[in-house]
Amino acid sequence: MFRRKLGTDCLEYTIERKHIAYADIKKSDSEDSSFQIPPKHDLPIYTIEEISKHTNHQERIWVTFQQGVYDITDFIYEHPGGEQILMAAGSAVDPFWMLYSVHLNPHVLDILEKYRIGNLDPNEENDSISDMSDPYANDPKRHSILKPASIKPFNAESPEQLLVENFITPNEIFYVRNHLPVPDIDASTYELEIEIEGKAKTLCLSLEDLKQFPKYTITATVMCAGNRRSEMTKVKPVKGLNWGAAAVGNATWSGASLREVLEKAGLTDVDLDKYKHIQFEAYDTDATGTAYGASIPIWKAVDRRGDVILAYEMNGVPLPRDHGYPVRVIVPGVVGARNVKWLGKIIVSSEESKSHWQQSDYKGFSPSTDWDTVDYSKSPSIQELPVISAICQPVPNTTVKVENGHIKVKGYAWSGGGQDIVRVDVTCDGGKTWHVARFDHHDPQTHPQHWSWTLWSCELPVAQGDKELEIWAKAVDSSYNTQPESFENIWNLRGVLNNAYHRIKVKVE
Amino acid sequence: MFRRKLGTDCLEYTIERKHIAYADIKKSDSEDSSFQIPPKHDLPIYTIEEISKHTNHQERIWVTFQQGVYDITDFIYEHPGGEQILMAAGSAVDPFWMLYSVHLNPHVLDILEKYRIGNLDPNEENDSISDMSDPYANDPKRHSILKPASIKPFNAESPEQLLVENFITPNEIFYVRNHLPVPDIDASTYELEIEIEGKAKTLCLSLEDLKQFPKYTITATVMCAGNRRSEMTKVKPVKGLNWGAAAVGNATWSGASLREVLEKAGLTDVDLDKYKHIQFEAYDTDATGTAYGASIPIWKAVDRRGDVILAYEMNGVPLPRDHGYPVRVIVPGVVGARNVKWLGKIIVSSEESKSHWQQSDYKGFSPSTDWDTVDYSKSPSIQELPVISAICQPVPNTTVKVENGHIKVKGYAWSGGGQDIVRVDVTCDGGKTWHVARFDHHDPQTHPQHWSWTLWSCELPVAQGDKELEIWAKAVDSSYNTQPESFENIWNLRGVLNNAYHRIKVKVE
Repeated sequence: MFRRKLGTDCLEYTIERKHIAYADIKKSDSEDSSFQIPPKHDLPIYTIEEISKHTNHQERIWVTFQQGVYDITDFIYEHPGGEQILMAAGSAVDPFWMLYSVHLNPHVLDILEKYRIGNLDPNEENDSISDMSDPYANDPKRHSILKPASIKPFNAESPEQLLVENFITPNEIFYVRNHLPVPDIDASTYELEIEIEGKAKTLCLSLEDLKQFPKYTITATVMCAGNRRSEMTKVKPVKGLNWGAAAVGNATWSGASLREVLEKAGLTDVDLDKYKHIQFEAYDTDATGTAYGASIPIWKAVDRRGDVILAYEMNGVPLPRDHGYPVRVIVPGVVGARNVKWLGKIIVSSEESKSHWQQSDYKGFSPSTDWDTVDYSKSPSIQELPVISAICQPVPNTTVKVENGHIKVKGYAWSGGGQDIVRVDVTCDGGKTWHVARFDHHDPQTHPQHWSWTLWSCELPVAQGDKELEIWAKAVDSSYNTQPESFENIWNLRGVLNNAYHRIKVKVE
Repeated sequence: MFRRKLGTDCLEYTIERKHIAYADIKKSDSEDSSFQIPPKHDLPIYTIEEISKHTNHQERIWVTFQQGVYDITDFIYEHPGGEQILMAAGSAVDPFWMLYSVHLNPHVLDILEKYRIGNLDPNEENDSISDMSDPYANDPKRHSILKPASIKPFNAESPEQLLVENFITPNEIFYVRNHLPVPDIDASTYELEIEIEGKAKTLCLSLEDLKQFPKYTITATVMCAGNRRSEMTKVKPVKGLNWGAAAVGNATWSGASLREVLEKAGLTDVDLDKYKHIQFEAYDTDATGTAYGASIPIWKAVDRRGDVILAYEMNGVPLPRDHGYPVRVIVPGVVGARNVKWLGKIIVSSEESKSHWQQSDYKGFSPSTDWDTVDYSKSPSIQELPVISAICQPVPNTTVKVENGHIKVKGYAWSGGGQDIVRVDVTCDGGKTWHVARFDHHDPQTHPQHWSWTLWSCELPVAQGDKELEIWAKAVDSSYNTQPESFENIWNLRGVLNNAYHRIKVKVE
């Protein structure tokens, strides 16, 4: 059911976003029945595992849409988008239809139904890996489009070129950064505890209790501190997942205001002089039972312009398990690591979280600091992220067709701390000429509450005879901070804060 | 009198800052009589003009301290600080004694008094340029240490190496950025008008009225958008004053809270959805009567963490005329141009200031934008400034003595928007090795209310045989934004936002 509802919701916000502010996107109560795929009881039922084997011409190419299973092998050559469709081979086309909204047309569904061969097993959502001695046995299934940087814990990003197809990143292709196994939480018994240090009484909220608070929806980009690490690694090896430029996504998040929940727990203005941090403890734990944890400064949590929410919905549906089901905190403008998933406890404290991830990870250092000299107590924990941009299309090291003397380049830009993006400059002649990119999607929310990325594009002139180009992009934010030029001088042993100019090489023809 | 009081105040805060938080510095009511220079009625009276002629051995070298005039020609060779003393030749030593607080010792005064030759004319403060057809005729006198970038209007900075001698910049060496003649305002008839657009009644406050509001003191760095422009100019010429790295200073500012004054004028929470900007109009006007003006976003003005004040004191004394006497706005974390001096009117508005300086100046552009293609409406006005640092000692192109295989480098670092400085990296081998600087003065106020610069120093190792070094410095702020490497890729036609790595060359011996 979850899967089917997701399909219709995606449809809804993809269409609606043409008319309304992104932050106002709401899940409608009525569903558009024209995009409901009914079961066909005369056709067989297939499991995801079975479908996943059909990814080439020899085995035939199968895809799913909602509950329908299709053999599209004979359709591929007719597909107007060409071989792009193969990205969904053996898996669901749903996220791609959100990205390429031309599909959201009854006529397209009619074509697809011609290739129907079966129904997706309705029990699939509850399936899990069967070896229960494996702590990751109960991790959820993921869409095959996600490229894993590690399997256990699961960390994955989508191909970069998909990111810029939609202002809102579909849940299925939203990067996943797990530090531990995904906890299996029953929403009906879920509890969130809120403690104010030194006060005897704590507040315990069920999911239903949380839903009684006013519901806020914000659109915010979440990014991993290690996004684009694979570029820094080329200078000198670093420790960490080998992320490309897609450990980032932009989604709508709905839930209760952290500030209002803290007030309910008894936090007063007087307390703000006493406490400095809001700690978060999660339900995911390591083999010793130690929970993931992090903290943010208290001013961010109580600021009316801070927009910190305890989210139970992502893009209009309940949070997917990989993204913190049933409740995570969304701290817009702040590094993903503090946007704690599977939230179990909130502690108002005079101190930062003592967790490994707050104290001994997610910090920046000088390029000359190595593993022999590093002292984690000397650097502040990363909170707001610096200004960054990336080129997502064309894909590096591919061949691009020159049209009317130009090639088209697309990418994203973002800055932490609620900073707006004011300009993206692109060059393909080593900086001799900078072209100002056009903003294709730019949230009208202003600094200091500009939480979403900006999607941009640029037509770059190509000189006759050019065979290869190096394209650079850099963004400027509303405090006129800009990106450092190279990775050499921002290199750090943990490979975080990879915001140097993005530089890619392509062939042109 | 003003001059004399300044001297004693300087003494007071220079001593006090060792014991208390900078932001808490207050002017004491009692004065320390041990540093009062009494008039000597048996000695002649000299004017500043007369004193200013005595700057070399042939004419003799004269200086003043408070109301005393001294011929120090014969003392120079005994001066423990060497020829540094010549920076005060023909002028006042008062600001230097603040910078080098070793002087604040009765024994030093005893030595100085031996060289006493006269008294400073007590009417000097009120003197002005005599040609009344010149709109700048009534500009105040300035200390000769200020190096003018332009005379009319007066714009000047002190030698860079003085900046880092004290966390608090003495008023006399604080850079001056005037756009127009300095208005001559009588504090007893001064009026500040506060208008909320669409409301018939305005609030008018005298200086005494303003002093009835609770008095706040903040320590904040103010910087010109064009600071370090002379480095950008080397890439390609730009329009603007040829500033070095000293168009910046750090001072304590005392006055009323803008937020509280706006509340008194009738601004309510409801209005915050309606209005977006706070405009400031000044008393300085051009030949057509048009006043200097600027605006800031309303959120900054009303935010409890914004710390915007209507200042009537600078470093514990009434604002000097060059710094906005009797009232200026201090918008900490925001470019100097919005810290409007000689404040005449505040307008709560749905729009930005229409002034030239808000609309058609103080904006950033792409390196490829030139005077033929620039469209000022396309860029946002500069508000928060990006992270910056500068090397202040040694002075570029001088010879530095190597001691124990090292040379000492000192400088400042700062970032707008209340960002803290978390690290300064220094290199003298082109970035192969980065040395983390020590923080000599670092305000404990945390982000987002960290308003003061950080003064840093670093001992750089020098290899035997090195004759010349190129030293680079870069700072990292609390959002881990860092400086761009070079001016080539941040060049802009107006020469603002000059925050590339600071690079200087020195000879070593």
